[in-house]
Amino acid sequence: MEPSKVDVLIVGAGPAGLMLSLWMAKLGIKTRVVDKRTGKIVSGQADGFQCRTLEIFDSFGIGQKVWQESNHMLEVSFWNPGEDGKIRRHHRGPNTQPNLSRFTESVLQQGRVESFLIDTIRASASPKHPLIEIERSVMPTTLSIDESCVNDEDAYPVEVTLRHLTEEEATPTQRLSNLQDGLYRSNLAEDDTEKLIANTSGVREEKVQAKYVVGCDGAHSWVRKTLGEGFEMKGESTDAIWGVLDIIPITDFPDIRSRCMIHSAEFGAMMVIPRENKLVRVYTQLKEVSTGTGRVDRSQITPELILQTARKILSPYTLDYHYIDWWTAYQIGQRVGDRFSKHNRIFLAGDAVHTHSPKAGQGMNVSMGDTYNLGWKLGLVCKKLLRPEVLDTYELERRQIARQLIAFDHKFSRLFSGRPATDGSGEGSSMSEFQEAFREAQLFITGVGIRYQPSLLVCKENDDTGDLGGGLQAETAPQSSAASTAGLATNCRPGTRFASQKVMAQSDARPWELQLQMPSDGRFRIVVFGGDISQAKQLATVNELGAWLQANLLSPAKSPRISLAPGPDPRGGSGSSQWMTDQDPSIVDVLLVHAASREQIELLQDLHPVYHPFDKKLGWDYGKVFVDGQTHHEGHGRAYERYGVDPARGAIVAVRPDGYIGLVTALQGEDGWKQLQAWFGGLLRSV
Amino acid sequence: MEPSKVDVLIVGAGPAGLMLSLWMAKLGIKTRVVDKRTGKIVSGQADGFQCRTLEIFDSFGIGQKVWQESNHMLEVSFWNPGEDGKIRRHHRGPNTQPNLSRFTESVLQQGRVESFLIDTIRASASPKHPLIEIERSVMPTTLSIDESCVNDEDAYPVEVTLRHLTEEEATPTQRLSNLQDGLYRSNLAEDDTEKLIANTSGVREEKVQAKYVVGCDGAHSWVRKTLGEGFEMKGESTDAIWGVLDIIPITDFPDIRSRCMIHSAEFGAMMVIPRENKLVRVYTQLKEVSTGTGRVDRSQITPELILQTARKILSPYTLDYHYIDWWTAYQIGQRVGDRFSKHNRIFLAGDAVHTHSPKAGQGMNVSMGDTYNLGWKLGLVCKKLLRPEVLDTYELERRQIARQLIAFDHKFSRLFSGRPATDGSGEGSSMSEFQEAFREAQLFITGVGIRYQPSLLVCKENDDTGDLGGGLQAETAPQSSAASTAGLATNCRPGTRFASQKVMAQSDARPWELQLQMPSDGRFRIVVFGGDISQAKQLATVNELGAWLQANLLSPAKSPRISLAPGPDPRGGSGSSQWMTDQDPSIVDVLLVHAASREQIELLQDLHPVYHPFDKKLGWDYGKVFVDGQTHHEGHGRAYERYGVDPARGAIVAVRPDGYIGLVTALQGEDGWKQLQAWFGGLLRSV
Repeated sequence: MEPSKVDVLIVGAGPAGLMLSLWMAKLGIKTRVVDKRTGKIVSGQADGFQCRTLEIFDSFGIGQKVWQESNHMLEVSFWNPGEDGKIRRHHRGPNTQPNLSRFTESVLQQGRVESFLIDTIRASASPKHPLIEIERSVMPTTLSIDESCVNDEDAYPVEVTLRHLTEEEATPTQRLSNLQDGLYRSNLAEDDTEKLIANTSGVREEKVQAKYVVGCDGAHSWVRKTLGEGFEMKGESTDAIWGVLDIIPITDFPDIRSRCMIHSAEFGAMMVIPRENKLVRVYTQLKEVSTGTGRVDRSQITPELILQTARKILSPYTLDYHYIDWWTAYQIGQRVGDRFSKHNRIFLAGDAVHTHSPKAGQGMNVSMGDTYNLGWKLGLVCKKLLRPEVLDTYELERRQIARQLIAFDHKFSRLFSGRPATDGSGEGSSMSEFQEAFREAQLFITGVGIRYQPSLLVCKENDDTGDLGGGLQAETAPQSSAASTAGLATNCRPGTRFASQKVMAQSDARPWELQLQMPSDGRFRIVVFGGDISQAKQLATVNELGAWLQANLLSPAKSPRISLAPGPDPRGGSGSSQWMTDQDPSIVDVLLVHAASREQIELLQDLHPVYHPFDKKLGWDYGKVFVDGQTHHEGHGRAYERYGVDPARGAIVAVRPDGYIGLVTALQGEDGWKQLQAWFGGLLRSV
Repeated sequence: MEPSKVDVLIVGAGPAGLMLSLWMAKLGIKTRVVDKRTGKIVSGQADGFQCRTLEIFDSFGIGQKVWQESNHMLEVSFWNPGEDGKIRRHHRGPNTQPNLSRFTESVLQQGRVESFLIDTIRASASPKHPLIEIERSVMPTTLSIDESCVNDEDAYPVEVTLRHLTEEEATPTQRLSNLQDGLYRSNLAEDDTEKLIANTSGVREEKVQAKYVVGCDGAHSWVRKTLGEGFEMKGESTDAIWGVLDIIPITDFPDIRSRCMIHSAEFGAMMVIPRENKLVRVYTQLKEVSTGTGRVDRSQITPELILQTARKILSPYTLDYHYIDWWTAYQIGQRVGDRFSKHNRIFLAGDAVHTHSPKAGQGMNVSMGDTYNLGWKLGLVCKKLLRPEVLDTYELERRQIARQLIAFDHKFSRLFSGRPATDGSGEGSSMSEFQEAFREAQLFITGVGIRYQPSLLVCKENDDTGDLGGGLQAETAPQSSAASTAGLATNCRPGTRFASQKVMAQSDARPWELQLQMPSDGRFRIVVFGGDISQAKQLATVNELGAWLQANLLSPAKSPRISLAPGPDPRGGSGSSQWMTDQDPSIVDVLLVHAASREQIELLQDLHPVYHPFDKKLGWDYGKVFVDGQTHHEGHGRAYERYGVDPARGAIVAVRPDGYIGLVTALQGEDGWKQLQAWFGGLLRSV
């Protein structure tokens, strides 16, 4: 049989693979997604959603579902031994620092979120957007790359053999008695991939040729192993073993519905994560099974052992349960790969290229962060809209995050597994150190503090020193020929995510989180902070910019069009209606946020049509102009103040399809505008 | 064949029938729901959701879905002719008065909401809650009531013949070409019920005996007609005909995304309702087809006619469209029945007992309001938890609302159809009158101002005069032996809905709209405003009350238990977990809102167990105690201030299962507590 052809083959349908599939569905890329397991997760596994992840979900129209079903983990309590050796509450405070995001850290079972992602992938299908189905019980068994054609964008250089597993193979025994063997899927479990590949009797296989292959296949990644030399994971393991229980607790411990970090005097540490549906996740250090020789006696690890350990740590409080949902155990270690891609044709993402301990609720978030970063680049390259060299920025940007993650986790895990000083003589010193580390790490943990380094995608500020903060220095990488102007939007730093502030629609006075007006649909966005356009001069500036944008960036001759998918839309309704017209919009979308009073401006009459584009089937677009003003029911967003923009001057903030700031430049004058042209020129193929 | 038996038979699966079915599903009542049509609505029909309706949806866990998909209609503009005869904007302001509710008026196609209701009905099934399926293409053809046993609660006195229609009968020709005949379902259309009943060839019929039958079968209600004498609708029709278009408009009219009331100099009036998915609904007066003789030439009414009329009214602005979703026309009239039930065995609800014009977005809301009022009463009587005489309050309460609605609509329609004075010589007088009528009606229109009169369910304040406001006087009705104390909670008036304020959970610091902690699950709620319980004396008072409640109201010997259904829960998670235990809770639920600082109180240690009830499978309940205080991320709710409760004194507010206040009494002392006992004693069967 002839090999079939596909643009993108995704191996693994966990959170990383599904996030990537969602981008492919939104962009209309011919994609296959395979996973060797027969079904998705229904209990346990990852559960923590960080602010930035919730913002990303919201950009796909599913943030509110997660937000509504999840437990919002608002407080963290630190407990440690008092003079009498008994634990006592040492400190209690907000778990997520206020004003970082409209979300806070939340907890929901991974499988629910996978369902939401899959439903959204399906709902994005249209005549121009092929339906992507998740193919279960399918795994790759061979992979080869034809290096002679990796630079030919029309070639399908990667050939993969896909094996369709039997139901029995795809459903390991452990799965049938999940609760009995909680170590299934733990990093203490055996990997069955080799065994599955070795079984060649009566198998059904097919060959697929792909332009791109992405390994989202977890810590035992077969794709990574197949890439061989140069793709080894580097790092270390400790001999600290931790157990995890998901239970509905029956306890008199007062802070059971807060996140708790508990250090006992003698029995090690414990973490409490309050979850949805009355569940609580309990992490306990299992000193009994940590042999100190790096070897672990797995047979000793049972839910009963974890419960007994938790009871000792919590004493004199009691702990019991009737319902247990899941349990597992794992060994702490931090490992990261040097290389995230080969020839920009094969990519690795998520656990396949970085692993660490789960307690800071990072794994699923950073994994989805990887493919959220990769997806739009890969999709737009497949559509021949984006220059292929932009794919280099995936490794540049996400390896930086992986390394920050590993460094954070290394420090945090050791602090947490270590024995604290009691606070008999004042404050326990290591406890304070721990709290301080926790506080410092907030910006990284929540994901909102991420700052990608300068590249083709992120235009350096004119005074940039390359210092990324926290001792990190930017790597050498090809740079955009455009430069950002410092000081125009002081809280909009290039490389950081464009934060959301509340603004009000000019057309109907509805308050909006501005981020919701920038859905993940593959478009770049030029956010024009027009300033106080009740001033004739300022209005003229904004309209001159509009005319320039129309002529130089947005006309069909100057910028590529992109077809938008249907499906959930963060802006409400049952989905974007843009697919209802045959007039595809430009890949560059323009939003105007002005600081005049809403009453002083008439949308259609006062503003250049670039701010309310016309479609012959859908009429004028009323959803592009926003006001920084007092709303009828939700107060004043103070957006200019919070973005750090002077209403008398204004600014342009250009944002990547993933919501990160690429360029900040001036509203006034061609010098500023030309930076836009230079930036897009380095990215888009037809500008 | 023997007749089958069912507790409740609901005729009609529109919004009223579905809301009733939802209550039955939540309460676990054996119910059948039949509708003569083959499918649910997919376009057009009702679309306006008022604040109170959204609050009700939220109490079933589906408010956020509607809120997210709908268009929020935030502004209203009034346009009328200027001196030159051309229309101009006369006034623009908020469409929903601020601070009435956490919601504002919103617009979404009726069919979407029916889907949400049906999904929630299905999700409420459990071993104790029979699955309720909507039976389409089924209609009643005979109905008889055995009056000899209407007072025997175990009897099934109503016998109904149900006919299973053929697909062709259930799908009238018009339906196949919905857009061609927009008058299908209009009040200008013929009723086909008699024709369907007359066709007896080859029909399949069954007999059903029901304890209760509810006619939710619309303006042509077969159930009402079958009840005969005493059930006629009374009222009048005008000869004003209005047309309705649902289009994606192509227009330069500046306020097309606001609600607009437009009066032209010569061509009549028009209303604009901006909807979801770029749709706009346009209502225009069709003077051409209003013959003045009460007869209408239906054949003249076409989308083109409505568009032409709208164009004339909007001139000099232009109006066109490519997409049309739906259209219809209707004749203005107001009619209401005198009787809403027969022997408390057969009930009428929604359009079956009151009809009016659609422009104020009331129909669907008041119809669902009817069955939201009826459902819990009927369900709890079926379960033998509530005294059957409480059923009398359905007619008492909802006829009052229907009459208010008719009076409002009569005034509003006439004002709107009338020709306004131009504002050449200052302000047009009838325009001001119109605006004033609109403003005054806000409390009624939004549904949040509804005040049910004193009865068994609503305990009169000691100084009550029977004046219901707006010239209405309370009817004579059996009264509770309990009395409310005026002045304890000055913004919690008996008979009004218990408004929502933001409070914070004691256990985990999460901010909550208090209403979300009072889901529609059939339970009465005692909201204890405990005051500043950091004061030892106040804490003692609250705990004494707790002990009294436990001994006198909540113990299994004193109050009936109720099994809770699974399904969406406004409190998050994937549903209530109460059904996971065999220990059913009391029908009386207790919530504590205190005014001490959260840090000063330890839930389990300081408070009586009635405020954190224990379950042997689920442990302590952490979700019953709330704080009026500063939250980490969402400010201070100022609940005591907004409810009008003095923190030094406190209050008890007892709330019905539908969220309306039944009784306000004192926190301190047995005199106040005994009012609770008296109130519940008049309602519940075993207290």
